[in-house]
Amino acid sequence: MSKENVRLSPPLLWGILLPVMVLLLSACTTAAPVLRGTGDLGVLIERADGRVKIVDTSARAVLAQVEGLGDLSHASVVFSRDARYAFVFGRDGGLSKVDLLTGRIVRRIMQAGNAIGGAISQDGRIVVAQNYMPGGIKAFDAETLELVADVPASYGSDGQRSKVVGLADLPGNRFVYSLFDADEIRVTDLSDPAHPTTQRFPAGRQPYDALVTPDGRYYIAGLFGEDGLAMLDLWQPQQGVRKILAGYGKGDAPLPVYKMPHLRGWAIAGGRAYLPAIGRHEVLVVDTTTWQEVGRIAVKSQPVFVMARPDGREVWVNFAFPENGWVQVIDTLSQDVVDTLQPGRAILHMEFAPRGEVVWLSSRDDNRVFIYDTASHKPLHSIAAASPSGIFFTSRAARTGF
Amino acid sequence: MSKENVRLSPPLLWGILLPVMVLLLSACTTAAPVLRGTGDLGVLIERADGRVKIVDTSARAVLAQVEGLGDLSHASVVFSRDARYAFVFGRDGGLSKVDLLTGRIVRRIMQAGNAIGGAISQDGRIVVAQNYMPGGIKAFDAETLELVADVPASYGSDGQRSKVVGLADLPGNRFVYSLFDADEIRVTDLSDPAHPTTQRFPAGRQPYDALVTPDGRYYIAGLFGEDGLAMLDLWQPQQGVRKILAGYGKGDAPLPVYKMPHLRGWAIAGGRAYLPAIGRHEVLVVDTTTWQEVGRIAVKSQPVFVMARPDGREVWVNFAFPENGWVQVIDTLSQDVVDTLQPGRAILHMEFAPRGEVVWLSSRDDNRVFIYDTASHKPLHSIAAASPSGIFFTSRAARTGF
Repeated sequence: MSKENVRLSPPLLWGILLPVMVLLLSACTTAAPVLRGTGDLGVLIERADGRVKIVDTSARAVLAQVEGLGDLSHASVVFSRDARYAFVFGRDGGLSKVDLLTGRIVRRIMQAGNAIGGAISQDGRIVVAQNYMPGGIKAFDAETLELVADVPASYGSDGQRSKVVGLADLPGNRFVYSLFDADEIRVTDLSDPAHPTTQRFPAGRQPYDALVTPDGRYYIAGLFGEDGLAMLDLWQPQQGVRKILAGYGKGDAPLPVYKMPHLRGWAIAGGRAYLPAIGRHEVLVVDTTTWQEVGRIAVKSQPVFVMARPDGREVWVNFAFPENGWVQVIDTLSQDVVDTLQPGRAILHMEFAPRGEVVWLSSRDDNRVFIYDTASHKPLHSIAAASPSGIFFTSRAARTGF
Repeated sequence: MSKENVRLSPPLLWGILLPVMVLLLSACTTAAPVLRGTGDLGVLIERADGRVKIVDTSARAVLAQVEGLGDLSHASVVFSRDARYAFVFGRDGGLSKVDLLTGRIVRRIMQAGNAIGGAISQDGRIVVAQNYMPGGIKAFDAETLELVADVPASYGSDGQRSKVVGLADLPGNRFVYSLFDADEIRVTDLSDPAHPTTQRFPAGRQPYDALVTPDGRYYIAGLFGEDGLAMLDLWQPQQGVRKILAGYGKGDAPLPVYKMPHLRGWAIAGGRAYLPAIGRHEVLVVDTTTWQEVGRIAVKSQPVFVMARPDGREVWVNFAFPENGWVQVIDTLSQDVVDTLQPGRAILHMEFAPRGEVVWLSSRDDNRVFIYDTASHKPLHSIAAASPSGIFFTSRAARTGF
């Protein structure tokens, strides 16, 4: 560098300073995502494209989209304790941690060959995936996605492994899940991830999905291999699994099952559980004190999701192919179907706003998510999305059993 | 300004440029608060100083403190739909909107002479204050705090106004509240704030506080002027108010009441409501199907808050002066008191983490907030705070009835 002085006119000086200032200012404004609360965010799965859209449920608008998430058929999502990150579980065993504020993937691992969703611990520190292949659950540090525990779903004398379904978090950093091939319910305590302990309960034939009541007390698994459901009181597990609704379809010729119903979700309202019957055009109603059937509600077709509006006054039901363009609404006070809607083609999932004023419905074949007012049952708005399936709002972060 | 050139050496040029760059960079880093999720934030009321501390419930740390909030004795807080803003209701009628991300007051109004808390509408657009003086409720735009509706609690022929207590939000942007002086429960529909409509229900003598069940269906008001509580089924309001637990203290000489119990909070677990008896050393247990008393649990002193852990397995109870250093834990399965704790002096409030792994307890006279593990019932951590009273976590944003 020459040591001689540089002669600068004041305009020239500003000609240097100003661009520098503008550059710096624009750098710090464009680099910094907008400061915002995360209590009203959500994620829409675009199943065919390995992509999610991040949405603002107050503005009913898309904030960002995130690519590169792998096979998102049957994908599910849980949220970090601070509601900033979405953990996206792909069908291909991919587990991705997405930052909802920056719209970026901050970590991504392939943790299994074939997976079916996950859950997050009560304290938010452990994310658990349920896997078909290799069958079992795996636990990861929620911060780093490092593996902290691998719990195979082994059974029998020759060490075969079962597909795991119906995973849900429980108080005390425990997780409950079902073994489709081993006819068991298991509870694994991950409060010390280096030393997981597992309790096993015979469950009945082929549990295929399950729900836990919002308080984390009762776990109910649907059975594919027999006529009834398995119920475990997690406050009194020594009592073992109790069969409920045994023989609900007895004597009837079974209908072909077009899609297995989902149990996970809000299906408890006013002291009753509303459960989809497999292969039947009925919603089964169970008293959650006695666990006896107290009614059946005839619906349009084979129910898939049976979800209570957060205030419990209504239960919304969608259906298997070919009737998957319909949604019915049950009034839990009268136990009647009070509305039959046709929001769009192939309604795959529903998610209620946390306090229930609206419900978002994904219409795969219309490539739209429709937002319905739950008081009027009328559409308010819609959002374009490519083959949307699951819809997940951050309010799930504060809830047990998702 | 002289037009002559300025002679700058390269070091001098950098001597100008560098500080400018540093200033700009530091401006954009210090001015921009840290990007973060808001699902795990909370507010601690420092009642004697008109101040709140903003806390991170994951890190168990104070993020900021906000001064200038007026008289915070008996203050309460609700949160915006996005969990970014806290609305702080002061005793002096002040209503402040605090940005939890920047730690600043973004709006503040004096809306009444004497107020006793508030609520936020299902859609998050309307914040409502309940006032003693002048008696009534007032509704404000949650964005701007502009008044959108003023609903006086007028009664009788000469237009006197009652103190309002027990305000809670309901589905449909409705609000339910009680009139202490007018012996009434009212439901005001603010779905069109320009034209509020109000239903009135005779309630019994001197309702002093109330709760709404988590589903928003049942509203239960404690009565100061008679022996029992008033219950309204908001799904069937035409049935009117029903008296429950009538005569629960009948025949006993009333004990002096040192502090009115609070009803608002999580007091519903496993199909039972746990209610503090006024002036008695008992928690009353009510079946929420029949609304009949099914038990009484003897506790150490006069209960103030009776709050269910989010999973409903335990109910935690604090007490009126002079026994306000104690906390008792009831097991809802056995209905027994299973633990008696002495966390600190003058335990004024409790707040559970949304999924219940810990509870925060404010100890006014120790100037600390203690964080207890709800599994072991042991203290994990504490935070210094001046005369702390109410503790409020952002997960309330997603819940009905707070």
